[in-house]
Amino acid sequence: MTDLTLYYAPGTCALASHIALEQSGADYVATRLDFRANAQREPDYLAINPKGRVPALVTPRGVVTETPAILTFIAQSFPAAKLAPLDDAFAFAEVQAFIGYLCSTVHPARAHRVRGYRWADDPAAIEEIKRKAPQVVGDCFDLIETRMFAGPWVMGDPYSICDPYLFTLSTWLAIDGLDIARWPKVADHYARMSADPAVARVIAAEQAPA
Amino acid sequence: MTDLTLYYAPGTCALASHIALEQSGADYVATRLDFRANAQREPDYLAINPKGRVPALVTPRGVVTETPAILTFIAQSFPAAKLAPLDDAFAFAEVQAFIGYLCSTVHPARAHRVRGYRWADDPAAIEEIKRKAPQVVGDCFDLIETRMFAGPWVMGDPYSICDPYLFTLSTWLAIDGLDIARWPKVADHYARMSADPAVARVIAAEQAPA
Repeated sequence: MTDLTLYYAPGTCALASHIALEQSGADYVATRLDFRANAQREPDYLAINPKGRVPALVTPRGVVTETPAILTFIAQSFPAAKLAPLDDAFAFAEVQAFIGYLCSTVHPARAHRVRGYRWADDPAAIEEIKRKAPQVVGDCFDLIETRMFAGPWVMGDPYSICDPYLFTLSTWLAIDGLDIARWPKVADHYARMSADPAVARVIAAEQAPA
Repeated sequence: MTDLTLYYAPGTCALASHIALEQSGADYVATRLDFRANAQREPDYLAINPKGRVPALVTPRGVVTETPAILTFIAQSFPAAKLAPLDDAFAFAEVQAFIGYLCSTVHPARAHRVRGYRWADDPAAIEEIKRKAPQVVGDCFDLIETRMFAGPWVMGDPYSICDPYLFTLSTWLAIDGLDIARWPKVADHYARMSADPAVARVIAAEQAPA
């Protein structure tokens, strides 16, 4: 029996937690939800995560939701994987600040292209929100490229939980009509992440037929 | 000389970090930015926080931004104040999950009432976003009240960094035309937080004439 179960759906931000789990060395199960069948709104799943969203990580002590919390939990639970600077409050805060920017600003900005109905009912307003979203996301990536990305990884060296999260949001750029080449550091990061065997395993698992 | 300087503006989410600092026992300075004069967009401030937002906490090692990161940094830097369960990865994840929900969902939902221009250019769409925002915020507080708030504090007992953050977002309800009485646990929490001497000192400082 494994101790950890991650609920995810392909194409969502749950990819970040999925990659971090794979890289942590944890024994885990990844369970796919069929968003096309609205499985995230079924009573069985709402009992796990009343928000009706992914990711959710079921642990022996209870459920953890929200990408920043799951990523931090993985880093703290599997310290040998060195996924965060656990013994340095300032360096840890820098990791949390980057992750906080992605979850509070970049991800919501992107969600306006695909889920405008969350913030408006009028179809014309939803269209306007959808139109502007890639521009807002582009502004965010400008800031990441010029002011936040240390290189070779997000926080410099070493690698951290910031990296699978940035990678996850980078996978949405092409879908939203944004050319990743506009941000050379982000593009190089994306290429190196894609080549990582653990990342490739996770992507293959998420895209495998159900 | 003090080691920590918090940049804030009255009426913003920086209140959460301000309260946590006051409760931590830290020696700090709080510096007010005049948002009416757009001080957050001046070159001096952008050199501190290129996002042009508050809060920002200047430390001897650099600047920390994003409320979740600042709150966590305060809790870790002043462990005697017991503002987070630092030695329990699961309990810490529960704190991070609550804070992550506030920063990624509740705060952006509310921002649509006052800063719709971030997500639309068309004035009619901005009006529609503004109209719907209180309804979205209300749905969030329904979830907090019924599924997240343990009582007597957000995480049960003891108090944590979740509490000043929830209090801060609660201060916006009346401004947005939402009656806090709709959420009895949140209303009781708001009343107890308001009566806390440290909270009262911070509010008095933020509202004092410049």
